[in-house]
Amino acid sequence: MSDQEDKDLDMETKSLTSVDTQRPNVPYIHKIGVPPKQKIFKEFKSTVKETFFSDDPLRPFKDQPKSRKVVLGLEAIFPILEWGRSYNIKKFRGDLIAGLTIASLCIPQDIGYSKLANLSPQYGLCKHFFFIFSTDIHHFPISISDSFDFCIDSSFVPPLIYAFMGSSRDIAIGPVAVVSLLIGTLVRNEFDPDKDPGEYLRLVFTATFFAGITQATLGVFRLGFLIDFLSHAAVVGFMGGAAITIALQQLKGFLGIPGKHFTKDTDIISVMKSVFGAAHHWWNWQTIVIASSFLTFLLVTKYIGKKNKKLFWVPAIAPLISVILSTFFVYITHANKDGVAIVGHIDHRINPPSLDKIYFSGENLQKGFKIGIVAGMIALTEAVAIGRTFASMKDYQVDGNKEMVALGTMNIVGSMTSCYVATGSFSRSAVNYMAGCQTAVSNIVMSIVVLLTVKFLTPLFEYTPNAILSSIIISAVIGLIDYDAAILIWKIDKLDFVACMGAFLGVVFKSVEIGLLIAVVISFAKILLQVTRPRTAMLGKIPMTSVYRNIGQYPEATKVPGVLIVRVDSAIYFSNSNYTKERILRWLTEEEDDLKAKYEPRIQFLIVEMSPVTDIDTSGIHAFEQLYRSLQKRDVEAKQHTFLVLANPGQVVLDKLYASGFPELVGENKIFLTVADAVHTCSSKTTYDV
Amino acid sequence: MSDQEDKDLDMETKSLTSVDTQRPNVPYIHKIGVPPKQKIFKEFKSTVKETFFSDDPLRPFKDQPKSRKVVLGLEAIFPILEWGRSYNIKKFRGDLIAGLTIASLCIPQDIGYSKLANLSPQYGLCKHFFFIFSTDIHHFPISISDSFDFCIDSSFVPPLIYAFMGSSRDIAIGPVAVVSLLIGTLVRNEFDPDKDPGEYLRLVFTATFFAGITQATLGVFRLGFLIDFLSHAAVVGFMGGAAITIALQQLKGFLGIPGKHFTKDTDIISVMKSVFGAAHHWWNWQTIVIASSFLTFLLVTKYIGKKNKKLFWVPAIAPLISVILSTFFVYITHANKDGVAIVGHIDHRINPPSLDKIYFSGENLQKGFKIGIVAGMIALTEAVAIGRTFASMKDYQVDGNKEMVALGTMNIVGSMTSCYVATGSFSRSAVNYMAGCQTAVSNIVMSIVVLLTVKFLTPLFEYTPNAILSSIIISAVIGLIDYDAAILIWKIDKLDFVACMGAFLGVVFKSVEIGLLIAVVISFAKILLQVTRPRTAMLGKIPMTSVYRNIGQYPEATKVPGVLIVRVDSAIYFSNSNYTKERILRWLTEEEDDLKAKYEPRIQFLIVEMSPVTDIDTSGIHAFEQLYRSLQKRDVEAKQHTFLVLANPGQVVLDKLYASGFPELVGENKIFLTVADAVHTCSSKTTYDV
Repeated sequence: MSDQEDKDLDMETKSLTSVDTQRPNVPYIHKIGVPPKQKIFKEFKSTVKETFFSDDPLRPFKDQPKSRKVVLGLEAIFPILEWGRSYNIKKFRGDLIAGLTIASLCIPQDIGYSKLANLSPQYGLCKHFFFIFSTDIHHFPISISDSFDFCIDSSFVPPLIYAFMGSSRDIAIGPVAVVSLLIGTLVRNEFDPDKDPGEYLRLVFTATFFAGITQATLGVFRLGFLIDFLSHAAVVGFMGGAAITIALQQLKGFLGIPGKHFTKDTDIISVMKSVFGAAHHWWNWQTIVIASSFLTFLLVTKYIGKKNKKLFWVPAIAPLISVILSTFFVYITHANKDGVAIVGHIDHRINPPSLDKIYFSGENLQKGFKIGIVAGMIALTEAVAIGRTFASMKDYQVDGNKEMVALGTMNIVGSMTSCYVATGSFSRSAVNYMAGCQTAVSNIVMSIVVLLTVKFLTPLFEYTPNAILSSIIISAVIGLIDYDAAILIWKIDKLDFVACMGAFLGVVFKSVEIGLLIAVVISFAKILLQVTRPRTAMLGKIPMTSVYRNIGQYPEATKVPGVLIVRVDSAIYFSNSNYTKERILRWLTEEEDDLKAKYEPRIQFLIVEMSPVTDIDTSGIHAFEQLYRSLQKRDVEAKQHTFLVLANPGQVVLDKLYASGFPELVGENKIFLTVADAVHTCSSKTTYDV
Repeated sequence: MSDQEDKDLDMETKSLTSVDTQRPNVPYIHKIGVPPKQKIFKEFKSTVKETFFSDDPLRPFKDQPKSRKVVLGLEAIFPILEWGRSYNIKKFRGDLIAGLTIASLCIPQDIGYSKLANLSPQYGLCKHFFFIFSTDIHHFPISISDSFDFCIDSSFVPPLIYAFMGSSRDIAIGPVAVVSLLIGTLVRNEFDPDKDPGEYLRLVFTATFFAGITQATLGVFRLGFLIDFLSHAAVVGFMGGAAITIALQQLKGFLGIPGKHFTKDTDIISVMKSVFGAAHHWWNWQTIVIASSFLTFLLVTKYIGKKNKKLFWVPAIAPLISVILSTFFVYITHANKDGVAIVGHIDHRINPPSLDKIYFSGENLQKGFKIGIVAGMIALTEAVAIGRTFASMKDYQVDGNKEMVALGTMNIVGSMTSCYVATGSFSRSAVNYMAGCQTAVSNIVMSIVVLLTVKFLTPLFEYTPNAILSSIIISAVIGLIDYDAAILIWKIDKLDFVACMGAFLGVVFKSVEIGLLIAVVISFAKILLQVTRPRTAMLGKIPMTSVYRNIGQYPEATKVPGVLIVRVDSAIYFSNSNYTKERILRWLTEEEDDLKAKYEPRIQFLIVEMSPVTDIDTSGIHAFEQLYRSLQKRDVEAKQHTFLVLANPGQVVLDKLYASGFPELVGENKIFLTVADAVHTCSSKTTYDV
C-alpha cells in the first residue's frame, strides 16, 4: 500500500511540477469522463430497484438450490421459522420475564375497560367512546356484552399474529394512544357513539380492516418509503400534542366528573371550560385525593426508573400495585358510597368474530376506507420508527416492507375478531427491551397472561376506582411529550421546529386532524422549499492546497483574479432552474460591481462547480443555455468575453448535457474534471488577454 | 496576476513535496472550517431573503435620497415611467409596425366572434360557450348585445393596463387557447351555458376576478416561485393535448356541423364519434372545400415563415388575407344559401361594466374562487414563461413577481369590464418580437387598431364564413404541439417524458382537468422521488491526481485498499435519511463480501464524501448516529475497528453536526477538508495496523 501511495504522490508532484516548469504549456489535466450511453432498460431497472428494492430483498436467494429458495421464501414471510429453530430455554427465560413485566403494565387498563360491560346501553357507549378516545399506550380487552353483544380485544389476536410474521424482536404490540385518539375522533365525526352505537362500532372495524389493507398493500408493493415523508419533527410535535389531549380527557375520571357533564371536543379551550364549569357541582374530592396521590406515586416510580436503569421494573409494576392498593382501599372504606366511581361487575367474552360487522359496500365503506388509510399510515410510522430504534440498538435489520405486511395482516385479522388498529407501543417496547426480551415470544406470553387474568381474576377488581385508571393513563402519556427532542430540533433546524410546534399547537388547540394536516403540509413544504431555493456559494482557493471551497465557510480562501467560481448546491430541476440561473447571474453582477469599485479587471471566466449538482432536467439545461446566452449578450456590451466553464459534472448530468448538445454550444473544452483544472486553464488564458 | 499564480503553484508544489519527503509524518492538512455560529435572526433573514426576495428588489433603492426612492418606487410599480422617458420616434416606429402586424393577426377572430350578437339567446350562448371553448391564441371582443346586454372584450382593457405595469417589452396580451379551454370546461361543470346563460357568464367574470386576485396576491407576497412547480415537461404535454382538443372542437365549424349536433365532451373519442355520426346528415361539402383550401394556404404560409425568418410577416397577415378573400368569395357566390354558415350582422358594445355581475358571496363565490385559482396559475405559468424567453433573447430582466402584480391587476380590472382571463400569448408575442417591437406600446397600438376595426369596419365582414375562423384556429393551435421539445425531453430524461405524455394523454383522452392533475401530480412525484432516493456512488482515485471520483463514471479510478469512499448525492432529510444510512451500509457489505472472496484485507475506514450533502436535518443526523453505532457493532463481531470518516461537510451541515454533538461522538479528527486528506490520514493508519 505504501508503495502504491508513494507512486501516487510522486505522480501528483510530477504533474504539478511539470505545470510549474513547463508553463505556459498545458499541464496534465485529466479528461472529463464521458461514460458510454446507458441502455434505457438498464437505467429504468436501476431506478426501479433503488426506489422499491433498495434493501435488495432477493440477495439471500442468489445462487441457492430450489428447495432452499422455498424454505427461504417461507422464512421471509414467517420469520419465526428462522429464529424458532435456534430458540432455547435460555431465550425463553428472558421472554417469560419480559412478557410478565409488560403484562403487569397492561392489566390495570384491561380491568378498567372491561368494567364498561355493566352499564346501560347509552352510558355504556358513551364510555365506550371514551375508551377509544382515551386509551393509552397499553392494550386492553373490552366488552359491552350486556348491551351489545360485541367486545373489542386488541390485546390477544394482533400480538400473536405479529409474533409469527414480524421481524422485530423487541416491539410490543397493542393499541396505542395516538392511533386510538385518531380513530376515535375521525369515526365520531361520522357517527355519534351515543346515538348510533352499532354503526359507530362497525365503522371502527371497517377502518381497522382498511388500515390493515393499507399497511399490507404498502408492504407488498414496497411503497414503504411513503411513510418517510412524515418528518421526525412533525411526529414529535404531533405525539406531544396528542399526549396533552389525552391527558386532558382524563381529567374527567381524575376529578370524578360524570361523562355527560363533560365536553366531547378535544381542544384545550373547550376542555378547560368544561372542567372549570363543572368545578362547583361535579368535582368529587374523595376521587381527587385518591387520583392525585396515586398519580404522585406513579410519577415518583417513573422518576426512580429513569434515574436508575436497573430499577426499570419499578415503574413497570407500579400501575398494578396502584390498582391493588386502591381497590383494597375502596373496598375497606366503602368510598364508592361517597361518589367514587368504581369498575363494578365484569363479564368478558373473548374475541367474538366481527367479520359480518365490516362494511363492504356503500358510503360507509368509503368513510371507513379513508379513516383506515390515515390511521394505518400513522400506526405504521410509529411501529416502523420503534422497530428501527430497537433494531439499531441491538444491531439487527428490520425489513420495513416485511414489517408492514406483518402489521397489515395482524390488523386485517384483528378487524375480523373484534379488534381495532393495533401497532407497536413505544413505552411497552422499551419495558420489553429492558426486561431482557429475546424474541417476539414475549408478546405471546404477555397476551396469554392478560387473557387469563381478565378471564379468571376480574371479580377481584370490582372495587377498583375509575380515577386510578385516569392516573395511570396520565402518567403514561406524559412520557410521550419529548421536550429533549423538541429542544434538539430547535438547536439543529429552525424550520423543523416550526413543523414540530405547528403540529403540536394544531392538535392541542384545534383537533387531531388539523394537527396531522399541519404536520404533513409543513413536512412537504420543507422538501419543496429546499428544492426551489438551492444554496449557492462563491468559492475561493484554500491556501497551500489546490482545493476550492466556500468563501463564507473558509474566510482564508482567496479569489482568483478574473475568475468567478460559483457552486450550486442542488440538483437543477424545473422547480429551481430559473432561480439558479438568476442567482448565478446575481453573483456575477455583484462581483463585477465590486471589482469596478476597486478598479480591478473584470470577470472573464465564470466557473460553475457542478459537484453537488446530482441531476438536471430539461428545464435545468434550458437555464444553462439561457445563462450562456446572457453571458454572450454581456460580452457584446462590454466588448470582452466572459466564458462559461463547468467543473466536475457527475455522470447523470454529463449524460444529459451531451444528449442535449450543450457541450457543443459552449465548447467541449469548457468542461473540466476539477475546479483546480478549470482555474488553471482559465487563468493561464487571462494572463495572455490582460 | 502571473506572479500571484506562480506563488500559488509554488505553494501547492511545496505542500505536496513536503508530504512526499517527510512521510510518515502528518502532511499539511488544512483544517475543516467550523464557522462562527450564525445568529438565528441572521439565518432566518437570509432564508427569507433567498426564498422571497431572491431577485433583490430593493437593490436600486440602496443609498438613494428619499425623493429618488419615491420615484424609484413609482417606477417599480409602473415601469412605463422608466422606459417612457427615453421613448422616442424611432422606437415608436418599431412599435407601430409590430402593433399593426399583431392586430392583423387578431382581427379575423374578433370579427368572427362578434358575429354571435345576432343569434337567439339559446343558440347565441351555445355559441358563446363555443367561443370560450375554442378561442385561440388571439384576443377578440364579443358581444351578445341583442340577447343579454353584455359583451366580453378582453382585447382592449388588459393590454392597456399591462402596457403601464408590465416589465416585459415583447409580450402580447390577450385571451389564450389553453386558459380559455380551461375556464370553459370548469365553468361548464357548474352551469350549462345553454340553460343558465346569465349564471354562466357571471361565473366566468367571478373566476376572472379571482384569477386576477390570485396572480396579484402571489406577486405581492412574492410567492412567484410556486409556479415553478409546474415542470416544463408537464407544460409541453399539457399544451400539446390542449391544442389537439381545441383543434378537434374546430371540426364543428370546419365540417359545417351545427352546434346542437355536436358533442360537448372534449375527449377525442366522444368528438370523433360525434364527427362521424354527423357525417351523413350534417357535413357540408361547400364549407369543407372553403375551410380546407384556406387551411392549406395558412399552413403553407406558416411553413414559408418558418423556413425564411425574414418572411415572418407572411404567416402573420395570412389570416387577414384569408378572411378578406373568403368573405369576398362567399359574397360573390352566395355560398351562404348553400349552407355555408356566415358571420352575419355585428353589433358591438365595447367593455360595458360587469362589476355587478361578479359573485361576491354564496356558493358561486367559492366555485369562482376555485376556478380562478387554477386558471390564474396556468395563465401565469404561460405569461411568465413567455416573458422570460423573450427577455433572455434580448438580455433584459423580467421581474417575475412584478409581472404577476401587473397581470393580476389587468385581470381584476378586466373582470369588471366584461373581460375574461387574459395573459401572454406565445404566437402573438413571437410575431410582435419579430416585427421589431420596442416596448409595450405595441400592445396599445394593437388594441386601438382592433377596437377601431371592430367598431367601424365590421359591416364589411358580414359574409365571412365561419369555417374560415375554424381554419385559422386550427392552423394556429397546431403550433402549440411541440414535437421537438417532446423528443428532446425523451432524450434527456425519461421520467420527464412520462410526465409530458401523461399530461398530453390525460387532456386528449379524458379532459383538461385530468390532464392538468396528472401533470401536477407527476411533477411533484418527481421532486419527491428524487428527495427520497438520492444517488450514492463509490469513489476511486483518478490516476495522477489527488482527485476522487465516481468509479462508475471514471472506470480508470482506483480503490484505496482498506478504505471505502462513498459519496451521497443529496441533502439528507427525514425523507431519505433511512435510505441513505441503509444504502451506505449496503455499499459496505457488498464491498466486504467482494474483498472476502478475494482474500483481501477488510475495510477499516468508511469515508463519506459530504460535498453534495447540502443540508441535513434532525433525522439525517440521527441516521448518521445510527450508522456510527452499526459500525461499532460490526467492530465487536469482527474484532477490528471500522471508523466513520466524513469529508468536506459544507457550512450548514457542519453547523448542524456541531449543534447536535456528532463530532464529539465520532471524534473531531474524523472530519476532513477533502477526500484526499481523509484518505491520506486513514491509509497511513492502515499501514501501521495491517
